[in-house]
Amino acid sequence: MREGAVGVGEVEWARARELDASDPLAAARDQFGETPGDSVYLDGNSLGMLPRRSVARLRQVVEEEWGRGLVGSWDRWIDLPFQVGDRLGQALLGADAGEVVMADSTSVNLYKLAAAAVGARPGRTVVVTDRRNFPTDRYLLEGLVRGRPLELRLVEFDEVEGPTAERVRAAVDGDTALLSLSHVDYRSGAIADMAGISAVAHAAGALTLWDLSHSVGAVPIQLDRSGADLAAGCTYKYVNAGPGAPAFLYVRRSLQAEISQPIWGWFGKRQMFAMDEGYRPRDGVGSFLSGTPAVLGLALVEEGVLLLEELGIERIRAKSIALTSYLVELCDRHLAGLGFELASPRAADRRGSQVCLRHARAQAICRELGERWGVVADFRAPDRLRLGCAAPTTSFADLALAVERIAQVSDLGEGPSSPSPAGGAAGATERG
Amino acid sequence: MREGAVGVGEVEWARARELDASDPLAAARDQFGETPGDSVYLDGNSLGMLPRRSVARLRQVVEEEWGRGLVGSWDRWIDLPFQVGDRLGQALLGADAGEVVMADSTSVNLYKLAAAAVGARPGRTVVVTDRRNFPTDRYLLEGLVRGRPLELRLVEFDEVEGPTAERVRAAVDGDTALLSLSHVDYRSGAIADMAGISAVAHAAGALTLWDLSHSVGAVPIQLDRSGADLAAGCTYKYVNAGPGAPAFLYVRRSLQAEISQPIWGWFGKRQMFAMDEGYRPRDGVGSFLSGTPAVLGLALVEEGVLLLEELGIERIRAKSIALTSYLVELCDRHLAGLGFELASPRAADRRGSQVCLRHARAQAICRELGERWGVVADFRAPDRLRLGCAAPTTSFADLALAVERIAQVSDLGEGPSSPSPAGGAAGATERG
Repeated sequence: MREGAVGVGEVEWARARELDASDPLAAARDQFGETPGDSVYLDGNSLGMLPRRSVARLRQVVEEEWGRGLVGSWDRWIDLPFQVGDRLGQALLGADAGEVVMADSTSVNLYKLAAAAVGARPGRTVVVTDRRNFPTDRYLLEGLVRGRPLELRLVEFDEVEGPTAERVRAAVDGDTALLSLSHVDYRSGAIADMAGISAVAHAAGALTLWDLSHSVGAVPIQLDRSGADLAAGCTYKYVNAGPGAPAFLYVRRSLQAEISQPIWGWFGKRQMFAMDEGYRPRDGVGSFLSGTPAVLGLALVEEGVLLLEELGIERIRAKSIALTSYLVELCDRHLAGLGFELASPRAADRRGSQVCLRHARAQAICRELGERWGVVADFRAPDRLRLGCAAPTTSFADLALAVERIAQVSDLGEGPSSPSPAGGAAGATERG
Repeated sequence: MREGAVGVGEVEWARARELDASDPLAAARDQFGETPGDSVYLDGNSLGMLPRRSVARLRQVVEEEWGRGLVGSWDRWIDLPFQVGDRLGQALLGADAGEVVMADSTSVNLYKLAAAAVGARPGRTVVVTDRRNFPTDRYLLEGLVRGRPLELRLVEFDEVEGPTAERVRAAVDGDTALLSLSHVDYRSGAIADMAGISAVAHAAGALTLWDLSHSVGAVPIQLDRSGADLAAGCTYKYVNAGPGAPAFLYVRRSLQAEISQPIWGWFGKRQMFAMDEGYRPRDGVGSFLSGTPAVLGLALVEEGVLLLEELGIERIRAKSIALTSYLVELCDRHLAGLGFELASPRAADRRGSQVCLRHARAQAICRELGERWGVVADFRAPDRLRLGCAAPTTSFADLALAVERIAQVSDLGEGPSSPSPAGGAAGATERG
């Protein structure tokens, strides 16, 4: 393919090899499982790869702790929601001990937090969010306001650059109970100015709830310096904790005593094994627990966090910026003439760890890339191709190969399918 | 110990050996992991044992599907909540396809179902439950009625025999929106007459919500013939799906179109990947999904259900009745003089798969049994020792040995601790 009309060319491959050779995180890839052949996985922002250490930990939890230790292992499991939450909070969120707990799914946590927030702002009638926020975030708020004396206000932000403090200032007022936004936009990857936006919301007397799903593990977060009140997020993307892994939630310490969530289960109760009459919540963030925690999943979150801690979130961010910057360059040089348009911020410090491209045939291209060329990316309606860069597992050569194949697929237009994937082997030799 | 003052005696051991020899489910124990030495595990009603097949399935899901298949494996995972729910519903609950889905924890599911129920009975102001219902069930309803124009009515039932249709008749009326009860009581093990009680609630115009956590996998359930409207339960007890495994929920088909749950997440939405504006729930029980399901846990639930299907729920029930009946006999013969009193129904068909004993020093006895004698049982406040019999894994000799050790521990009174567990080896030889 080097010779083909749409190969990225030898100069590009040399550059990718150089970047990989000087990458201080290059060896991190060995800490993850293998993927088939010469495939390129650019979907770690949807499902992170399997860390090798997680296989061993899972065996320990299942075969030893459950299999042999049986119910007695609850002595060690019972603290996992706090232990793992603290570890994740301190390593990745800039939270203090006692501000983060692992629980349920992101959706259920957003519900609990949003319900708690509107309960803590009686008399205020408006909940504000981004019209283009991740769907579950919008749906949950829709469900929350239904049947309550509340209204959901959907704000239109720039679809590439995302929310800004200026636009938020025009959208919040003395009626606003809660502002709920994503830290990193799930499509464009735009990073919101958490501190600036939170300050605007607080000036109006509103609370803030941040969805960190697309930033945790990829973008350093300083919740305690950002003015965030509440936050939640998932761990199956950049934290590499596996499909449907437990989510986390954050409640700023100074807010914990005045806020109350609606799903009162035994794990959220003070002295849960007293099993007595009358619910009294635990002190602290533990009051946001409800049912029995998913032990296997929590162990995998812990392994994922430990691995990111070892690699270092600042080094991860540095490589992530290098990856997405190189990917934007590649797109400019090789895809701009093929109908693609950048749909992520151009400024590297305004981007999370993904690059989004707009193309009229994005859905077909994405399918073709995955099915026939082993390049795994995401289609996001209506016309976006989303390319995720997970710093611990993505190489610069991966990006060169992906762009080469995107160019090949797109160049074929809407005619018959591209040649068989066997041809991909030539591309593989160019990666080394 | 055979010679000891409090051994159960050779006649009893011969009887236990006989019962084990003629047990058609005796070989099922080999399908589970090993437990240490001569311990006796009577806590399968709190955490079921590890099925060997689950180790292989987990390896498949983690190392192959996640590790190699990565995000592409969502093609098969996406249906797991329905596929596993249908399997569990048909094998263990007497539900039809499309009436059961796996989701979240029991606590979160009870919240969704109870909220949906009161939403479907506008104008009715009372929610009725058992004052001694499992704590999380009571707490959730407390949380639900708070801040709504609703009141929670706690009904006093006999603490050994549990709820009856007669007592329920006096507690429900034209104001009752929902009656929420456990099918099998978590302490006494009493089985409630689901059909009779549901009929009484329906006559008053109320909906019924049943917690099946202590019956699923042990007691055959016929939801479709019982008049139950809604149900939920856990899978980490008799379904052997592991600590914190996903829970299930049931919505009677004829009710599905007129009921709506409050936690609107992307998995509950029609055409979830359209990610468009405006939540519109899926048709059917899938509208009760919220966030991303716990894939590893769902795979383990499926293995647990497949194993119980192979063993047969009717055979499981027959052995369970034989086990608890033998245990009641043993208690009558060997423990009655030591301060124990039966706190479960005497009639075998009114008991789930556990036997509960009342004793003034139950807590100390339970701790001593576990820590020094390897007999794992549950203490339940204030004075109950709960002995769970899991038909696939509990032998009759287990029960004889457990009662022998309970007698030994209790006979020591409140003096110094019993001899070191090394002495337990003698007991083990008597089991064979």
